[in-house]
Amino acid sequence: MIHETAIIESGAKLGHNVEVGPYAIIHRNVVIEDDCKIGSYCELGIETSLGDGSPLIIAKNSNIRSRSTFYESSSFGENLVTGHSVIVRENTKAGKSLQIGSMSDIQGDCSFGDHTRMQSNVFVGKMSQIGSFVWLFPYVILTNDPTPPSNDLIGVTIEDFAAIAAASVILPGVKVGAHSLVAAHACVTKDVPSGAVVGGTPAKIIAETKDIHLRNDPSQSAYPWTQHFHRGYPDDIVKSWKNQFTK
Amino acid sequence: MIHETAIIESGAKLGHNVEVGPYAIIHRNVVIEDDCKIGSYCELGIETSLGDGSPLIIAKNSNIRSRSTFYESSSFGENLVTGHSVIVRENTKAGKSLQIGSMSDIQGDCSFGDHTRMQSNVFVGKMSQIGSFVWLFPYVILTNDPTPPSNDLIGVTIEDFAAIAAASVILPGVKVGAHSLVAAHACVTKDVPSGAVVGGTPAKIIAETKDIHLRNDPSQSAYPWTQHFHRGYPDDIVKSWKNQFTK
Amino acid sequence: MIHETAIIESGAKLGHNVEVGPYAIIHRNVVIEDDCKIGSYCELGIETSLGDGSPLIIAKNSNIRSRSTFYESSSFGENLVTGHSVIVRENTKAGKSLQIGSMSDIQGDCSFGDHTRMQSNVFVGKMSQIGSFVWLFPYVILTNDPTPPSNDLIGVTIEDFAAIAAASVILPGVKVGAHSLVAAHACVTKDVPSGAVVGGTPAKIIAETKDIHLRNDPSQSAYPWTQHFHRGYPDDIVKSWKNQFTK
Repeated sequence: MIHETAIIESGAKLGHNVEVGPYAIIHRNVVIEDDCKIGSYCELGIETSLGDGSPLIIAKNSNIRSRSTFYESSSFGENLVTGHSVIVRENTKAGKSLQIGSMSDIQGDCSFGDHTRMQSNVFVGKMSQIGSFVWLFPYVILTNDPTPPSNDLIGVTIEDFAAIAAASVILPGVKVGAHSLVAAHACVTKDVPSGAVVGGTPAKIIAETKDIHLRNDPSQSAYPWTQHFHRGYPDDIVKSWKNQFTK
Repeated sequence: MIHETAIIESGAKLGHNVEVGPYAIIHRNVVIEDDCKIGSYCELGIETSLGDGSPLIIAKNSNIRSRSTFYESSSFGENLVTGHSVIVRENTKAGKSLQIGSMSDIQGDCSFGDHTRMQSNVFVGKMSQIGSFVWLFPYVILTNDPTPPSNDLIGVTIEDFAAIAAASVILPGVKVGAHSLVAAHACVTKDVPSGAVVGGTPAKIIAETKDIHLRNDPSQSAYPWTQHFHRGYPDDIVKSWKNQFTK
Repeated sequence: MIHETAIIESGAKLGHNVEVGPYAIIHRNVVIEDDCKIGSYCELGIETSLGDGSPLIIAKNSNIRSRSTFYESSSFGENLVTGHSVIVRENTKAGKSLQIGSMSDIQGDCSFGDHTRMQSNVFVGKMSQIGSFVWLFPYVILTNDPTPPSNDLIGVTIEDFAAIAAASVILPGVKVGAHSLVAAHACVTKDVPSGAVVGGTPAKIIAETKDIHLRNDPSQSAYPWTQHFHRGYPDDIVKSWKNQFTK
């Protein structure tokens, strides 16, 4: 399952049933657990003086698509899925079932909860703290420097179940509340309350999420999205969401 | 013309005079017609359960630049040209002479007419329908989910000869009319009439295209751009455009 | 120091102590000076009819990270540093200590002074002229076509020490003055005076840089940033900056 052109350095630890595609490079300080698939041209475990010396850990049942670049000293829970050409720096810690879209760029010292999903070309600046069940849509940018360039870095915080629509920018230190929605192409300069919809530049509160209805069924509120969107989530979690709304 | 390090799977069909660069991978379910050039590190024909089983078809005289990734079950007319590091998913159908800029990301189930041109880092969401002679400039984003995340997907429609300037976002289901112009950094939330110029967030009509003049020749209207911009289009088409304006 | 899988074409000139990573490709019309490091999967010196026939020159002590693509007929001063997956076209001339962020795309016919730094996903359109000590943050876009598509191209000019924050777009022909700051997510349609802060779409003057204070030390102005931010600049330059402010 290891392609003959792949380069696996001595010291790398690969579990059972790990596939490694053509021209991939696995450096020495890497742990890949069972049942993972590493695509062609991936390079995992690049050494860096900014890491703490710990290995890159890819937990079981993960699928890293081609051309992805990961540094050492980050760890990912089981079921990690990436698109193509992803870049992930050191000291990033993620829960399980993270999805990273193609060409996304995760800087160092970030954290992610469980089941968070990013689409293409998301930029996650250093020190971002991102909860569980969060959605970051294409070209979302999480910044960290309030007076660029400076050493005053402060990451953004995105709470559970928040959804940030395409091409939005979140300014340094901003907290985006749980179950909120940032509209497409917004520039968020202040904290967003839980359950609010914000949009524009600078972003203002334009609604509460409960006021937004599904396009195909205007009788139903579109939020919390857990009421109607379940694709790819584990059965027990979906069941708990359903119970919540039928009470 | 096939570099010795390229991997060509059994089943792939390559025409006459096809060049394949170093470290490229051509999977089995691919048809590449005559006189095509496939750059280094390209990977063509990735298998996916989301495809219909049909091959990736690259028609004659195409030039796919290095590091590009194409899935199976898409087809492209002759003279396809891509930049570097392009990603194209399954079930995408394009006419002839499509240009895809570097790092652009074309999701599945999209359609393109003839002679449409994208620049760098264009994101084409699933189910986008794009006409002929369209221009999508750098970092244009075509979305498809009105209440993200949901299953209510609806693609955007871009009609013939429309030009979408840099860093604009088109919201789900919006139709951008023929010969219109979306100004840079706009967020388009409503349909754009043919021949209109829209700009801002949310985008508003700010002019008609005929009111915009060339910078280097203010006596001449800049639109329809077919009056003055002909680079790379076939002679017979340019001739028909000229006839149209001299009548 | 040349990995056995790297392809070095006859004619390429490599200095002393040059490292070349796995699967890299160095074409014939390339000069790499002493003490440079070329990462895995890099491809340097792609031939193009748009170049003047001169080689790609990478001066001493440079570090080009993996998956980067450079064409022939550009030259870079010493200490060039790139992120991953950078694309640089022909006829680009840069001074020393340029930093190019991951996935940035530098079009042809651009110029850069010394010590300029770009972060991820910066798009530098053809004919951009960028000074020294400039900062371009993630997803900044420098455009060049006032009536797209046209042949009326005019690049932007960014003067020394200017900082352009994330996701801003600079329109064709605009001059961004020295020591100015463009706020995140701005669309800059007119020249920016030296020392001004601009923001919004279209961008307006919202302050002078001297009115913005450091987050962690509100008694100190955040600009000129040379007062407090010195990371990675040479000692003699930092000393000159300090002298300037203690006079």
